[in-house]
Parts: sequence; C-alpha cells; structure tokens
Amino acid sequence: MFNDFSKKYIPMIDQSIKDFFKNKKDNAEYPFIKDFYCDLEEFCLRKGKRLRPLVLLIAYQSYYRGEGITPDIIKLASILEIMHSMLLVQDDIIDKSKLRRGKKTLHIILFERYRDNTRNKNIGKDVALVLSDVLFANAIEIIADIKTDPRVKNEFLYYFAKTYELTAWGQILDSINSLPVEIDTESDAPMQISALKTAHYTILGPMLMGFILSGREDENEKKKISDFSLPLGLAFQVRDDILGVFGSEKKTGKTSDSDIIEGKLTLLIQNSLKNKRKREREKFLSIFSKGRKTKGEIDEIRNLIVKNGSLKKSKDMLFDLIEESREKLLKLNIGEKEKKIISGLIDLISNV
Amino acid sequence: MFNDFSKKYIPMIDQSIKDFFKNKKDNAEYPFIKDFYCDLEEFCLRKGKRLRPLVLLIAYQSYYRGEGITPDIIKLASILEIMHSMLLVQDDIIDKSKLRRGKKTLHIILFERYRDNTRNKNIGKDVALVLSDVLFANAIEIIADIKTDPRVKNEFLYYFAKTYELTAWGQILDSINSLPVEIDTESDAPMQISALKTAHYTILGPMLMGFILSGREDENEKKKISDFSLPLGLAFQVRDDILGVFGSEKKTGKTSDSDIIEGKLTLLIQNSLKNKRKREREKFLSIFSKGRKTKGEIDEIRNLIVKNGSLKKSKDMLFDLIEESREKLLKLNIGEKEKKIISGLIDLISNV
Repeated sequence: MFNDFSKKYIPMIDQSIKDFFKNKKDNAEYPFIKDFYCDLEEFCLRKGKRLRPLVLLIAYQSYYRGEGITPDIIKLASILEIMHSMLLVQDDIIDKSKLRRGKKTLHIILFERYRDNTRNKNIGKDVALVLSDVLFANAIEIIADIKTDPRVKNEFLYYFAKTYELTAWGQILDSINSLPVEIDTESDAPMQISALKTAHYTILGPMLMGFILSGREDENEKKKISDFSLPLGLAFQVRDDILGVFGSEKKTGKTSDSDIIEGKLTLLIQNSLKNKRKREREKFLSIFSKGRKTKGEIDEIRNLIVKNGSLKKSKDMLFDLIEESREKLLKLNIGEKEKKIISGLIDLISNV
Repeated sequence: MFNDFSKKYIPMIDQSIKDFFKNKKDNAEYPFIKDFYCDLEEFCLRKGKRLRPLVLLIAYQSYYRGEGITPDIIKLASILEIMHSMLLVQDDIIDKSKLRRGKKTLHIILFERYRDNTRNKNIGKDVALVLSDVLFANAIEIIADIKTDPRVKNEFLYYFAKTYELTAWGQILDSINSLPVEIDTESDAPMQISALKTAHYTILGPMLMGFILSGREDENEKKKISDFSLPLGLAFQVRDDILGVFGSEKKTGKTSDSDIIEGKLTLLIQNSLKNKRKREREKFLSIFSKGRKTKGEIDEIRNLIVKNGSLKKSKDMLFDLIEESREKLLKLNIGEKEKKIISGLIDLISNV
C-alpha cells in the first residue's frame, strides 16, 4: 500500500521541484545563477525515497476534511525534500563524503569544476556550503508563495522551523560524540541523537506538518501523533545504524564503511561496548577513534559488533520499536485506508 | 541624527534578541542545547553596528501609517541581526578567520572546547556550520510567531527569502573569484559581488522589508527604494574594500590583512590591474593568489594599490556612489525627519 502511495506521489513531488527550479532558472538575475540552479536541481532530483514529503502527504491525507491533496500541498511537501538536500549537502561537507545517492557529492562536483580557476583548495566545500543556504532560502520562498489560512501558515512555519532546529541539535550532538576519545556506555547521547536528527526530522516533524496543513486543531491528536512517530523514527535510525555498518553500497547509495570511518557513536556501537571489560573497550576504542582506518581495521570493528552480540541487540531493539509504533498507529484517529498505507511504511522500516 | 536613532533602537534590538534566547534556554529540550544557546547569544550580541535591523526600522518608520515601531517590528528587525550572525559564522568558517568583532570566532571557541573529546580535527568548524542552521531556523520561528496581516506576512517572507538567496549568490561568486589563477580586468564579477552580497543584503533587502511591514503597497515607491539603495549599498562595499586593506583592526574588528590574504577580487583590486602591462599584472597576481603570503608580500600588494592610483580611484568611486544615493534619497516619498536620519547613515558610509 505504501508503495502505491509512493508511486503515485513521488513523480508529483519531483515535478513540483522541477517546476520551482525551472522558474528560478528562467528568472535568474545573472547567468551564473542559472548554472548553479542546474546543479541544485540535479542534486535534489537524484533517485531517492522522498520519505519526508511522503510522510507529510500521508498525514495530510489522514486528517484533511474538504479538499484532497492539492498542488499547493504537493509544493509544501516538496520543500521537505529540498531541505533534505540542503542537509545532505552539509553532511557531505562535514563527513568529506565522495558519494551521495550513487553519484558525486556536490562539493566534489564543484571542486572539480573550479580547482583550475582558484588556488583555494577548499573551493568545492566553500561553494557547497553557501549553496545549502540557497536551498534553505528556496524552501522559505515556496512557503511565502502559498496562499492558505494565516493560522495554518503560521503554525506550519513554526513546526518547519522547529523541525530543522531539532535536526541541527541532533547533528551537533552527533558531531561532538564522533571519533570519541572515550565512550560512556551509559550516555544518553546516542538515543538523543537518534530522537533529534532522525525521529523528529524524518517522522514526527513531517507528520505534524501534514496534520497542521489539514487544518485540524487538536492537541490530543498531536500527542498521539508524537507517541506513534517517535518509536518509528527511532526504529528508522537503528535500522540506519545497522545498514551504515552492514549495508551494501547499492542499497544505501553511500559507502557502507562510512559510519565506522567517521566513528559515529550510534546505539549499535554503544551496545557493543556495554558490559565489556576495560581492556576490550580500550582495544575497540583504539581502532574506532582513529581518523584513518585500514580495511582490516574496519572489518575488525564489524566482526566485534557481530561477535559480542551487539548486532542482535540492535535488531531486537528495532523490532521492539516497530512493535510499539504499530500499537500506537492503532490509536490514531484516522481512516483504515490511511492506517494501511502507514503500516506499509512501517514494514519498509522494519526490513533490514 | 542616525546616531540618535541607533542609540535609541540598538538596545531594543539587543533586548529582543536576549529575550528570544532566554526563552530558548528556558525551554531547551536537553541541557546541552541550553549551553549552545549561551554561545549563540554571546556571539549575536557582540558589539556591532546593527546596521541591517536599523535600516529596516528606519524604512518602516518612513512609511508606516498608524502604529509606530512596535515590539513586533523590533522582533522582526532583530532577525536581520540573527541572520547576520548566521552568515558571519559561515564566513569565518570559509575564511578560517580567528577573530570576529574583536573576539574569537565561533568555530575557534568550539574547537578549543571539544578538541580533547574527539579526534575530529574539524570539530569546531563542523559544529559551527550546523549552529548556523540553528540561527536560520530561529529567524523563521520568530517570523512564525508574529501576528500580522497575511499579505504583509507573505510578502515579508518572500523578501526575507529573496534577500538571503541573493546574498548567497554574491558569496558564491566571491568564492569562485578568490585566489584567482587569472584576473579578467573587464569582468563584471566584482560589481555583481558587491551588488549581491552587500547592496541587496545590507541596504535594499532591509529597506524593502521595512517598507513591506509598514503595510504600504506601491510598486513605484519600491522602484525608488531600489534606485536609492543600490548605489548606497555599492558604496558600502567599496568602503569595506578600502577598509579591508587599509583599515585598522580596531575599527573593523577583524585582521586588516584578511582581504589580501584571502585574495578577494574586489573592485579595489580589479582597478589596480586595469590598464597595466602584462608583466606588471603577472607580478601582482603571483603574490596576490598565493595561499600563504608573508608580511612583506602583503605590504607589497598594499603599496602597489596606492602607487598605481587604485586607492584614489576607489575613493572617487565611493564618493560618486554616495552622491548618487543622496540624489535618489530626495526622490523618496518620505518625511523630512526620516530623510535626515537616512542622510546621517549616508554620512557614516561615506567616511573612510
């Protein structure tokens, strides 16, 4: 069911992004701006799940009374994809990634284009960073352009701002815990990181934005949406942690060593150090926190995670979270058809 | 007159920023968020001219009919300062600057705080980059919170987005022209950079936002505002170019060698190469485009700029632009009192 929903709306979301960039290209103040919009369009429209716009749309469809999914709602959904691209561009700069969705990252494309014109060796990253601001501004421009009830607009704007603020806090907590000198196995950080940069960002924020756009006002239902979205969002992150270490490049579109290379303090990693003796922890950490790791060292980390039962623990955690979200889905005050679509999304997330 | 206006409103702008961050600190989802808001508050409230909020306020005061400058208008003006801080944080990352407004840049503060916890040597820059997103989201949250006429809100949001989009294009054009391998003395780039990242950003955008908030709708007056703002904004950049090479650190709050070190293609630099023989241009460029320059080399560039008359040419250009903006100011359909205040701002910008 979720697949049908995706198949129906992904082309509309993509067309909406295309139309927006066409307009920006046609009305560019200077020719160089047009060229950069070609880059942004190519980047934003790379094959992807369009998960956040789809979550917004399914929430909207679940709650609206009156008009169905209109072109304006598609436009507002598409800005979640534009914002997603904005964050991916920044992520790739921070992580020095070379691949994104199976193609070159934006900062690499720009570096290759401009390296012969300037002696600034960071030119790719510098330009990509500022292009992320352009995407942020583009999203705001689209919101400005939509005519809707002022209360809805203001509340949408509020949740929009809140979602990306919380995402940023998650990203920051992630950064200060990466390549750690010491790991606190009791720290709440991995859980907070998952809640902020994934659960709020991917599920709760888009769900609430869709709910708001439907015109409903019901604090009680918002609470239920939160109860449902947080475990599902956490599950999504736990799955991502597993794929980030054991997934195939083909499936994730990025190098599958990246989480280990970047020394990300995920729940998977934290679990693998719990109840371990000091010597074992130190051995793990001595490899894990290296800025550069050999292929052999990366495999060693991977083997340790399997051997010490952390992979199983993470899979158990994933299934518990999935179960919780299924229970909470039943409590939502929405139709059976929409419950089935959302249930299909849960199936997808439970699949590792 | 502009000084009195500044003295009256700067404390209100600062108080508004303080109140916003106090609220964010009081309602932080996790304790670590509170700590980062202390950093952001300290950074945003460093001593500065608060030029962009003041330009918005004077435009609003020039055009409003009905209520004067209300707390909501102050709040909306203050987001221009928050956005300014957001761009300064990014600028400092890109330029690897150590000082901003006479104190340590944000990425340096963060690097010093976290360098012992992580082996990520870029930790300061990585966290600062994402904090810039927090500031962007904060600005949006403030806009969401203001109750105003929906047409005004939408149009404000549009000009807000447009202003920061154009600023970003200016910044990008600046980047791809810095530390150049070759300089085209006829290129329009330095003029476009100045128009986008300074004239739109510092004068035209804030003027239009203030005009919009006043509730007026008058395309003809918007055009006049543009005619006035662009030369004044360009003058501001030409002045900044001169100060960036000849200014004192005390006056500018940043190292006065920075423009030369970063190899910025300003109008000042472009002028200094016009009508020069190939050998002279090559000699200049061989020093100018070096990633690292000695104190002696920096002084050599500075001397060349004086000797070949480019400093004088830039000063002449500055005065012409100032004259043009004075003429265009007279055409604005605003009161004498406000004209005097704006005239005071022009005086400030004409002073190098």
